[in-house]
Amino acid sequence: MIKLILEYDGTGFSGWQIQPDKRTVQGELEIALSRLTGDRISTVAAGRTDAGVHALGQAVSFKTDSKHPDHVFCRALNSLLPRDVVVLAAEEAPEEFHARRSARGKCYRYLIRDRPARAALSRDRVWHLRRLLELAAVRKATTHLIGNHDFTSFRSASCEAKSPIREMRRIEVYRDGHGLMVIEMWASAFLKQMARAIVGTLTEVGTGKRRPEEIKTILEAKDRERAGVTAPPQGLYLVCVDYEEPLKENKG
Amino acid sequence: MIKLILEYDGTGFSGWQIQPDKRTVQGELEIALSRLTGDRISTVAAGRTDAGVHALGQAVSFKTDSKHPDHVFCRALNSLLPRDVVVLAAEEAPEEFHARRSARGKCYRYLIRDRPARAALSRDRVWHLRRLLELAAVRKATTHLIGNHDFTSFRSASCEAKSPIREMRRIEVYRDGHGLMVIEMWASAFLKQMARAIVGTLTEVGTGKRRPEEIKTILEAKDRERAGVTAPPQGLYLVCVDYEEPLKENKG
Repeated sequence: MIKLILEYDGTGFSGWQIQPDKRTVQGELEIALSRLTGDRISTVAAGRTDAGVHALGQAVSFKTDSKHPDHVFCRALNSLLPRDVVVLAAEEAPEEFHARRSARGKCYRYLIRDRPARAALSRDRVWHLRRLLELAAVRKATTHLIGNHDFTSFRSASCEAKSPIREMRRIEVYRDGHGLMVIEMWASAFLKQMARAIVGTLTEVGTGKRRPEEIKTILEAKDRERAGVTAPPQGLYLVCVDYEEPLKENKG
Repeated sequence: MIKLILEYDGTGFSGWQIQPDKRTVQGELEIALSRLTGDRISTVAAGRTDAGVHALGQAVSFKTDSKHPDHVFCRALNSLLPRDVVVLAAEEAPEEFHARRSARGKCYRYLIRDRPARAALSRDRVWHLRRLLELAAVRKATTHLIGNHDFTSFRSASCEAKSPIREMRRIEVYRDGHGLMVIEMWASAFLKQMARAIVGTLTEVGTGKRRPEEIKTILEAKDRERAGVTAPPQGLYLVCVDYEEPLKENKG
């Protein structure tokens, strides 16, 4: 089994998953893999990112009989992949490794440019909101999301996961060196559009439309209608995937 | 006189300056201004950025008889401009204000992704170098650039500036939160391709090809052939333009 770590710009892709007549990350990767190995290869990703969502550290697994040293594999694959996808690392993984099922946690980052003028330089990389968000209020709201919860209120109607229970381990809210508001979430796993529904709802707290405490009642309602808008895909980044059990933290 | 602050993504532009049959920032801005005011308007920018170079805070000045409150002007202009340019601020300036001639200093930032794998997400935003740069060596090299110097060794053959003397006030070298190497330079003004020639030469120090002390002899040689490669445009950002005399600093 081979494990890859991928970075990609989601802008030009209809998401991760292969679909007929669409340009997808999985599609491009499998074309490059078949050219490299001469075999038809099926890949599995840790997170099936939506159209427009980016990845800094997507994990992918697949089987191959091809025997290349890891760095040769990496370099050869990158020369075949289009310029909006790149393999950061390739390594041999245990036979039973499965990029999605073996994952123990994921981190997603969301970037918001909150200022009157729209974003030009980072227009496909952030969500632009005209109104300034209040950091302290957003931070306060996130405390209600930490722990094991039924995230039904924050999942897409088309989500097929059997259980809506997820463990939210940590959320960091800060402004980066460029004044962007950053929301980083570490969870056991994410339901469909969960990260974007949470961010959309948090921004409504940030503008004063909702109180931070409302997050608690929204969670308890188990009703997607009660939460806020779904934040657009271009601000979302799959940062990394953990395959080890997390250390217990007191943070949150 | 009106002063504007612009952000733009240089990728889709043949630089700032109007040229026949090319898409330029000045061209797009003047089209939008003429649509807004009904007049033909000539603009002046603080820095005539090259093709592919970005701006976070380009300053522009122009005359108009049009009387709009600043925020209305800003918003109306942004609705007319293409999505890779945005006006961050508009304000009335004194009659004698001239975006280029009134400038007292400028800051340019350069971003380098130094790692084996190329950049996918930020491919038009950084310079990719396969070899890791040694931060301490680059930092040491920059100390030789601080102060008033003849920067002939770091200017393009086609530079038309009368004097090659410029005051380099400060250079910061650091790694940002994403592991990018950042080189930030504050100077009284920059000669043509000076920022990129300096960065190109500094990277040769960072990889060990040159010693930090060589910067001193390169400056003294007043010969462009002695310095290193010109770093590519996509890693360069015009960060801001100062119109006040700088405070004297002990830093460097």
